[in-house]
Amino acid sequence: MFRLTITALAVTLASATLWPLPKQITTGSTTLPIPNGSFKFVGQSENDSDLAVKRYIPLIFPHSVDESGDALDIQVTIDDESSELQLDTDESYKLSIPESPTSDTPITITSKTQFGFMRALETLSQLVEFDFDAETYSIEGAPIDIEDSPRFPHRGVLVDSSRHFEPIQTLKNVVDSLAYAKLNVLHWHLVDSQSFPFDSNSYPLLGKMGSYSQEERYTPNDVSDLVEYARQRGVRVMVEIDTPGHAASWCEGYPEVCPSTTCTEPLNPSTNATFDLIEGLFKDLTGGEAKAGLFPETLMHLGGDEVNTDCWTNTDAVSDWMDEQGFDEDDTYAYFIARVQSIAHSMGREVIGWEEIWNHFGTSLDPSTIIHQWLPGSKVGPEVTEAGYRLIWSTDGVWYLDGLGVTWKDMYAAEPTEGIAEENFNLVLGGEGCMWGETADTSDIQQTIWPRLAAISERLWSPKNGTQDVEEAAPRFAEFRCHLNRRGIAAAPYDNEEARNAPGGPGGCLDQRRV
Amino acid sequence: MFRLTITALAVTLASATLWPLPKQITTGSTTLPIPNGSFKFVGQSENDSDLAVKRYIPLIFPHSVDESGDALDIQVTIDDESSELQLDTDESYKLSIPESPTSDTPITITSKTQFGFMRALETLSQLVEFDFDAETYSIEGAPIDIEDSPRFPHRGVLVDSSRHFEPIQTLKNVVDSLAYAKLNVLHWHLVDSQSFPFDSNSYPLLGKMGSYSQEERYTPNDVSDLVEYARQRGVRVMVEIDTPGHAASWCEGYPEVCPSTTCTEPLNPSTNATFDLIEGLFKDLTGGEAKAGLFPETLMHLGGDEVNTDCWTNTDAVSDWMDEQGFDEDDTYAYFIARVQSIAHSMGREVIGWEEIWNHFGTSLDPSTIIHQWLPGSKVGPEVTEAGYRLIWSTDGVWYLDGLGVTWKDMYAAEPTEGIAEENFNLVLGGEGCMWGETADTSDIQQTIWPRLAAISERLWSPKNGTQDVEEAAPRFAEFRCHLNRRGIAAAPYDNEEARNAPGGPGGCLDQRRV
Repeated sequence: MFRLTITALAVTLASATLWPLPKQITTGSTTLPIPNGSFKFVGQSENDSDLAVKRYIPLIFPHSVDESGDALDIQVTIDDESSELQLDTDESYKLSIPESPTSDTPITITSKTQFGFMRALETLSQLVEFDFDAETYSIEGAPIDIEDSPRFPHRGVLVDSSRHFEPIQTLKNVVDSLAYAKLNVLHWHLVDSQSFPFDSNSYPLLGKMGSYSQEERYTPNDVSDLVEYARQRGVRVMVEIDTPGHAASWCEGYPEVCPSTTCTEPLNPSTNATFDLIEGLFKDLTGGEAKAGLFPETLMHLGGDEVNTDCWTNTDAVSDWMDEQGFDEDDTYAYFIARVQSIAHSMGREVIGWEEIWNHFGTSLDPSTIIHQWLPGSKVGPEVTEAGYRLIWSTDGVWYLDGLGVTWKDMYAAEPTEGIAEENFNLVLGGEGCMWGETADTSDIQQTIWPRLAAISERLWSPKNGTQDVEEAAPRFAEFRCHLNRRGIAAAPYDNEEARNAPGGPGGCLDQRRV
Repeated sequence: MFRLTITALAVTLASATLWPLPKQITTGSTTLPIPNGSFKFVGQSENDSDLAVKRYIPLIFPHSVDESGDALDIQVTIDDESSELQLDTDESYKLSIPESPTSDTPITITSKTQFGFMRALETLSQLVEFDFDAETYSIEGAPIDIEDSPRFPHRGVLVDSSRHFEPIQTLKNVVDSLAYAKLNVLHWHLVDSQSFPFDSNSYPLLGKMGSYSQEERYTPNDVSDLVEYARQRGVRVMVEIDTPGHAASWCEGYPEVCPSTTCTEPLNPSTNATFDLIEGLFKDLTGGEAKAGLFPETLMHLGGDEVNTDCWTNTDAVSDWMDEQGFDEDDTYAYFIARVQSIAHSMGREVIGWEEIWNHFGTSLDPSTIIHQWLPGSKVGPEVTEAGYRLIWSTDGVWYLDGLGVTWKDMYAAEPTEGIAEENFNLVLGGEGCMWGETADTSDIQQTIWPRLAAISERLWSPKNGTQDVEEAAPRFAEFRCHLNRRGIAAAPYDNEEARNAPGGPGGCLDQRRV
């Protein structure tokens, strides 16, 4: 599909380096002046698309210029401007920049949805260069024709708001940055053992008792506010409620859902109180039906990882119940997972679970279950997909952002389809960088995520062909980190021994001293 | 002046802890509900004040509420809404919150200037609490009467954009955070030996050749944009052009202003080219007259520190010239400083110099010179002020933010008037935290500055009486760090051994694990 090699691209576009690389691009050799430090977008609706234009104009043109004159038109054509944002949303776009645009032959952006249009705006913003000497804008390499669409539909970051509370503003800042890298998922690991920061209307003591402090909670309105903010930027917010493990914080408000006060997780499978609470909580989150509620997102993550069943076998009430049912530990685990999945299904959600549920239960899982690969060294993808199950890729040691020693190059070299038969590639939905929150709060989340998540973003967006050489990608990657910095995103120096290290000494954005 | 002790304040206002403490506050014991999650501000103009209201409404009310009904009025009275922002600008305000506000007896804010009004808005934002259980807003401790004004007129942070380029968006984010702590100065250490990121119209090669890269430059419009952004938030932007030392980057574009290509600084005092360039550059910055140009700020910092004269004595052309003039090294240094000061004076600027110029030249300096105390252990304040000179306080080892081992408590304990006679207190203009940029760029500047700069902000804003006990301040300080985090400012955990360390493990904002 590539008509030009990456090398040619890098030469032609000079410093206007694109990240992530588009699927297909042809360029010429003309420098196209952009008069008046602006564009005039024509044809977009007044809703999401126009909001996106309003956001992008200052990003495309960060420096005021004193010129007067007419801005170039950009003709926008969007098939359906009120598309829903879901896993199957079309994000493709075409961007065509003539050598000499006129009102009859303007720059054009066409897309199926408003979200594809947003991706085009980001690409455009990376094509427009500012000449500091002349104080003018231009585009190098016109005519330019770009046809672009993502390789994988699910491209995101996991953010953990339980080990540290991440304020809504912090999450909005993360959402902004995701859109800059054409990522489209915020996987919100909302609660865990350490704290329960969500205010459930059905079970208010979860947040009231389970949060770190009164201020470290999300109201339902906070969630809606964030989800809408993200939607406007083409970012789906997928909630995770991790059970039966990783749930000790639930006992603070509702001790009856835990085996005992001293042995708190996995959650108590022997009482309907547990499943009633889960059902009530899920109803708060989903509105009880498909595409509704606080999280209209169809995918819902149910966790299911790291289930240590000792608290079940060591708690009489639970182990007696298991005996009655004729359940061993794995039966109980399976029962729990299936019951919670069915609650989510009843509310029109498709479910994701961490890969342990595959390792324990394999093809006895509901076939719609999506497996989230994470275990260090895991090679579970081929068998998962061979069995017809869908896969999301986040292997620890490779795409775990809290692994501070993992470099962007390691992340870039990863390949979610590795070992998978080509006819099953469509079952690989994509992947996520995982920003577990043990040592990440508002003070350092951006520089722990960035720039490494950008390596993941190109792996998930761009064709495999053309993005296999990490050294070839390196100058564009370095430039993208500066691009994030210019937008106020605290992306760390890209080449330090440990992620989020401070720069080692004076230097430019592109030539940081390594430490 | 205090009618209530701090302890009483802390008890009465519960978690609505103010930072920095106001000059005078009286409180009651009534909880005042704030209906409808908003206020209706009445009486402000449509310019700066109303922009401030628009910024603060979402900061005061970060959580949407579902109530309907009438918002409480806030009656705004500002004597002069078009005040200039300068050193002598009045930032005082009165905020009065009745026990039961009505349209006849509303909440009132009165101030002399729109900038005092902005300070009142920040105070108000810290008084309004959100009840997560009821999902309503309230103010604790009504009636509340606050009379407030800063102890010192000059309260800021130095940011160094030479050791690392700090994009305009990064600086705007810093400006936002300054206003949250009632700080009012961004001391912009614009250029230094490592890079010259400013595009001078008169001497374009300074930026073109002296910057790290094409993208790491500020256009004049960028500067204007930032200065206006800061002005709207009550933050003065004071530029520093540090000469004759700290200027090696100037030689890249104009080698004639340096002693030689191998011995580059201090700048060459023996040629008019040097002073012509400085005059042209200053004209670019100041418009050549008082309160004009890119930096309408009356104060201009001329550096003058760390002048190692070896390049003068070791360069024949310079040492010959010194011999002709009958100048020794100190004479030459004095000549240089005086000549540059006179250029700035001719453009209506009052000048500041780092304390070495006092140590070298004392009362032979122009009496309007402001001395910036910085040398480690320096006790120069008493003699400077005794001689009638004005002082700004930033002692290295105490208020240098790049000193990562200096704790907020050390910073809080500092006292700029130490040793100074009370009748000279008015000569102490205030102080600055200094964020030297060797290891600070967009990726870590916020968490290196914050929360420690808040210790400085209370020292400079609040009365000395009532802010002497660091342990009493600690809970308020911790809360203010969370306040910054909630606004998306990457303030680091406040109690770590080194500033900007990541949190040591899971925990709440107020109970970080120390590392």
